[in-house]
Amino acid sequence: MKKQTLNVAMIGHGFMGRAHSNAFHQVGHFFDSPYALRLKVICGRNQAALEQMAARWGWEEIATDWRAVVERKDVDIVDIGTPNRLHHDIALAAAQAGKIIFCEKPLAMSVEEARRMADAMRGRPNLVWFNYRRVPAVALAKRLSDEGRLGQVFHYRATYLQSWGPDPARVGVWRFKQSEAGSGAMGDLLSHSIDLALWLNGDIAEVSAMTHTFAPGREVDDAVLLLARFRNGSIGTFEATRYAIGCRNRNAFEVHGSKGMVGFNLEDLNRLHFFDAAEPPVVQGPHNLLVTATEHPYVSKFWPPGHIIGYEHTFIAALGDFLSALESGQTYHPNFDDALKVQQILETVTISSKQGSWIKVPGAPA
Amino acid sequence: MKKQTLNVAMIGHGFMGRAHSNAFHQVGHFFDSPYALRLKVICGRNQAALEQMAARWGWEEIATDWRAVVERKDVDIVDIGTPNRLHHDIALAAAQAGKIIFCEKPLAMSVEEARRMADAMRGRPNLVWFNYRRVPAVALAKRLSDEGRLGQVFHYRATYLQSWGPDPARVGVWRFKQSEAGSGAMGDLLSHSIDLALWLNGDIAEVSAMTHTFAPGREVDDAVLLLARFRNGSIGTFEATRYAIGCRNRNAFEVHGSKGMVGFNLEDLNRLHFFDAAEPPVVQGPHNLLVTATEHPYVSKFWPPGHIIGYEHTFIAALGDFLSALESGQTYHPNFDDALKVQQILETVTISSKQGSWIKVPGAPA
Amino acid sequence: MKKQTLNVAMIGHGFMGRAHSNAFHQVGHFFDSPYALRLKVICGRNQAALEQMAARWGWEEIATDWRAVVERKDVDIVDIGTPNRLHHDIALAAAQAGKIIFCEKPLAMSVEEARRMADAMRGRPNLVWFNYRRVPAVALAKRLSDEGRLGQVFHYRATYLQSWGPDPARVGVWRFKQSEAGSGAMGDLLSHSIDLALWLNGDIAEVSAMTHTFAPGREVDDAVLLLARFRNGSIGTFEATRYAIGCRNRNAFEVHGSKGMVGFNLEDLNRLHFFDAAEPPVVQGPHNLLVTATEHPYVSKFWPPGHIIGYEHTFIAALGDFLSALESGQTYHPNFDDALKVQQILETVTISSKQGSWIKVPGAPA
Amino acid sequence: MKKQTLNVAMIGHGFMGRAHSNAFHQVGHFFDSPYALRLKVICGRNQAALEQMAARWGWEEIATDWRAVVERKDVDIVDIGTPNRLHHDIALAAAQAGKIIFCEKPLAMSVEEARRMADAMRGRPNLVWFNYRRVPAVALAKRLSDEGRLGQVFHYRATYLQSWGPDPARVGVWRFKQSEAGSGAMGDLLSHSIDLALWLNGDIAEVSAMTHTFAPGREVDDAVLLLARFRNGSIGTFEATRYAIGCRNRNAFEVHGSKGMVGFNLEDLNRLHFFDAAEPPVVQGPHNLLVTATEHPYVSKFWPPGHIIGYEHTFIAALGDFLSALESGQTYHPNFDDALKVQQILETVTISSKQGSWIKVPGAPA
Repeated sequence: MKKQTLNVAMIGHGFMGRAHSNAFHQVGHFFDSPYALRLKVICGRNQAALEQMAARWGWEEIATDWRAVVERKDVDIVDIGTPNRLHHDIALAAAQAGKIIFCEKPLAMSVEEARRMADAMRGRPNLVWFNYRRVPAVALAKRLSDEGRLGQVFHYRATYLQSWGPDPARVGVWRFKQSEAGSGAMGDLLSHSIDLALWLNGDIAEVSAMTHTFAPGREVDDAVLLLARFRNGSIGTFEATRYAIGCRNRNAFEVHGSKGMVGFNLEDLNRLHFFDAAEPPVVQGPHNLLVTATEHPYVSKFWPPGHIIGYEHTFIAALGDFLSALESGQTYHPNFDDALKVQQILETVTISSKQGSWIKVPGAPA
Repeated sequence: MKKQTLNVAMIGHGFMGRAHSNAFHQVGHFFDSPYALRLKVICGRNQAALEQMAARWGWEEIATDWRAVVERKDVDIVDIGTPNRLHHDIALAAAQAGKIIFCEKPLAMSVEEARRMADAMRGRPNLVWFNYRRVPAVALAKRLSDEGRLGQVFHYRATYLQSWGPDPARVGVWRFKQSEAGSGAMGDLLSHSIDLALWLNGDIAEVSAMTHTFAPGREVDDAVLLLARFRNGSIGTFEATRYAIGCRNRNAFEVHGSKGMVGFNLEDLNRLHFFDAAEPPVVQGPHNLLVTATEHPYVSKFWPPGHIIGYEHTFIAALGDFLSALESGQTYHPNFDDALKVQQILETVTISSKQGSWIKVPGAPA
Repeated sequence: MKKQTLNVAMIGHGFMGRAHSNAFHQVGHFFDSPYALRLKVICGRNQAALEQMAARWGWEEIATDWRAVVERKDVDIVDIGTPNRLHHDIALAAAQAGKIIFCEKPLAMSVEEARRMADAMRGRPNLVWFNYRRVPAVALAKRLSDEGRLGQVFHYRATYLQSWGPDPARVGVWRFKQSEAGSGAMGDLLSHSIDLALWLNGDIAEVSAMTHTFAPGREVDDAVLLLARFRNGSIGTFEATRYAIGCRNRNAFEVHGSKGMVGFNLEDLNRLHFFDAAEPPVVQGPHNLLVTATEHPYVSKFWPPGHIIGYEHTFIAALGDFLSALESGQTYHPNFDDALKVQQILETVTISSKQGSWIKVPGAPA
Repeated sequence: MKKQTLNVAMIGHGFMGRAHSNAFHQVGHFFDSPYALRLKVICGRNQAALEQMAARWGWEEIATDWRAVVERKDVDIVDIGTPNRLHHDIALAAAQAGKIIFCEKPLAMSVEEARRMADAMRGRPNLVWFNYRRVPAVALAKRLSDEGRLGQVFHYRATYLQSWGPDPARVGVWRFKQSEAGSGAMGDLLSHSIDLALWLNGDIAEVSAMTHTFAPGREVDDAVLLLARFRNGSIGTFEATRYAIGCRNRNAFEVHGSKGMVGFNLEDLNRLHFFDAAEPPVVQGPHNLLVTATEHPYVSKFWPPGHIIGYEHTFIAALGDFLSALESGQTYHPNFDDALKVQQILETVTISSKQGSWIKVPGAPA
């Protein structure tokens, strides 16, 4: 069977550019799909870096003008991996040009931007790289929750702890600039935690938050903390920071419900802890699940039971699911609308931090 | 050498009565002290239970009128382990009678009560059973912090997670009654976390908090969550709950500073996790310390290296330290003044929860 | 109810003397029993140490001639905690005098000695301090095994790893002397592992072993390794050493059966790992059991759920069970006959080590 | 820079075929090398499976006659991933044809075969897929050992525990057939453990071993256990089994030396436990290293710090190192000579198992 080719243009060529390039290459090796992805053009501002990247990852062409790229007739997918500042303009142009769009998170610099982007793409194929929904262990947590094995949720607790904030070598990066990133730990880390929370535990009704910047003169938040009330009656805490010395990448959550509990930590990506309160007390204790069984989400796509996967596979699985949705005409999640809801939470967090009080989250689009 | 005998009167005979009785018996086996404790009289309302307790633990007499007991000439120490409602009156009467006082936590039902108690006992020997300061691993965390091995603290994170809140068998206990307990998870669990935080990380400047009651009709809080700003510039989150299904007794904290991190969980009482950012990156990772070495706090009092201790030893060590301070004329901590500071935080948490905003913590007594 | 008093004479006053003294004091606080233990006399060679020990632990008298002590009419129980060399002579004299006997492990210096001791006490109350059977988590493993939840056992794996062998401060201790200890890691550590294995997995049919001494000139084994075939068809490995740098007290075992697995490590005394192969694969994973639930063995004797116990409680629980068996006239285990079986394995291990081949274990007494 | 193309022929298309195909694709994305690999031809017996595999992984051609394939002029590398029975004949033919050879482990069915293969390829580029040397955590263990941070090694302990042995769905697989596999757990699992042991701890002098088959009528060993004496004076235990219910893929080792300890478990591939006995006792404890720092082996090739890798990356890293050695003319390890040494251990294990006694390992080729 001949596969339909989809030509990809990728804007941006940093860490995320590598992760996306890898996914474009690998998805066909692990996922069945009628589409073949062609790495058509990579676009950025640094010619030398683009050439290296193209040579290494097999991009056919390089380009430095994203406006020209997104309008190319031979481009089907525009993948946005630039600093946050550019997401909105690129996405709107690509939408105008009728492209499929993939976009890094956070979706935009503001709710206003995000809403325009979501409006422009509603009903059309798009994806936001909230890749952690595709961690097998996280997908398993979702499945257990959907099956009612957590019961009525009481508590949700999320941390995203990194430690590179004080690193003098990183002082100049765009992620520390308000004009480029829009925020610090909030958009970079908290956005992931919020996306997972909305997916796993439903809408957040209101928040009380604080942001904090430890580094003198830094424009963006180094840390953000919040309390939350979910619509389902549960309550939660969130903490995202670049100043958690000792933690490289602890993107973790725990959910306690009337019937059970799940716990996850990205540093142990292949594990899920599941406590089943329906078991006899004598054997009640968190199951330390190595999420590599045939019965677990995504595992059959990759390697036999007991063989773990890494960070990059979350991008491959997201892309695999997207292509499957594309084929069947279903709506892929998380998409721009989902990311708009995250953006609304972030904006509410910002307001709450400034006002020092609880703020209700505005209703999300139907 | 003949030891001086101190006669103890214990008011209350529940779970804490057992833990205290054990400490009175055991302290002389493990700690050097010029004092011998004599279990003189146990006092409560249930005659049959008192008789059983006295027989099992060797209390010489039983009594049902605490007012008479605290005034007995042959009583040196009054140990208060009743429901919270009675702490204040018993303590004031015992202070009036010139006794040494030990009191369970939380110290009182209000700051007003606590202040009167602290005023009455200031400069005189007293102890509050915030026993977790005497966990060897916690004392080691304090030592590492005092030695500057954490550097400037950025983040403090504490949880006290239990799961018996929904248990129908516990519905009638005094801990669920406002008039007996004053609060729920707040006084019972959060008070411990706050005491440790103040000890390990210094004063809290302001808090933003929420309380929540899951059980319909219940008078006290099932959970309390808060964000905090410490005077040292660090920020923190606290969560105490009786609805964390999957957690029996997770009294845990983590502290991230510029030079290192410590982490503790009461369910693994004999362990401390210590991350040393001064090490070469290639070997940087949390040290999983089995806190049973001769060099660790309290260990030489108990068993040889590698032999763990249990929950009850924290009471023994607290008492051992108290008797040592008594002998040398030093002030023991945590005492009523320390517990008053905790009570001030709890009251600030309550106000913040009602107002939905940040509230500054009133200055503690000098 | 007036309790019957049993007078105890303890021979030996080292580490084990403290652990036993504590148990004698504490058993009545936690276990119901019609017997009251009276710490009558402590016996040893060092007068000053005896006096200190007696003062601290409440022994009424001290003595230096064990032969006189074991014949005292006012002694009911003789507790042997001396270096191994003396176990046999003291036990035989105490048996002759009609006493109840408690003895430290290993029971004797040889099978011949052990057999005489077991013969002398068969049918009469006696106890060997293989205390680890009374760890709640270990007792839970036994219960799960007895209930068939492991199925047909395939593999048994035990390690007892300590690290003080190279410590220059310990060079002169009796445990390094052949004439005092009889063996090194074998009698000290392996004996514990073997006792647990026989209890949890039944008789061992044959072994292939090696001993090794790392320290030049040392008389006893620093390490002993063996392969084993059990009578139930399972196979096993054992490793006991004082040269496992990094491990203070890792007395651990794992059992894999057709239906499940259990895993234990003394350094985490309050935990048992239980894998249930009968569960749906999607939630199959080791349950990390905090063995502090009311439903778990021994827990109701000590503290409420979630409050851990320590090393010393294993002695208290052993003693509690012994007194209960004494009252009901049942045979307590592990006793001299059980310890004789351990001694037979140790002797077989020694022979196998010398011959470098598999050796069948002689049949144990009926 | 134009890269030199190396054409690969892969014989075999099972699980290993997928892992190798992935490595051929991915090596150029992560490792610098002057070689470009071209997936020229995949060879096997099942035409339909070959076509699927070729389509998915981009093999240009398929073939069913390995003899023809290995003689093709346009093939530079022959990669052998067939059942063990064929390794020898294919390797000798490929050697005869002057090819670079990659071969799965165990290298051969016997020492005799392995020796002929090693003789044929000595001094010429070849690789054996003992991929676990390239786990970053394992490479870090090797580095720490080479730096002297373990000191004089006392103990080596390895397990390779899987649990699919009793699975009825696997009854017919070639791995259970003597004629296809040569052995069971021994060649499949123990060979990996032995390769790592020889690399990390040097030559093994003698072994005492047993094999065991649990399944009635099965031709190969389900489990193999052994004790070992290393030439460096340390002693070790090894256990490999397909009947360790509860363990999917626990390829683990621990090394205890006079100065430190390392511990690894493949189920937590990105972690290494390192105990440093040179540290002050108060902070001595295993460092739980998340081996994802820039300073760690291989990490800079893959993702930024804190982002874990998976099973497949070990093949990519092995291939990356091979191509680097090829370019510089250095000898790659592990190669056929290294695998011959493993084969000699396996044969010694077999003899020891049959004779029930210690057997010296014959000297390896210089």
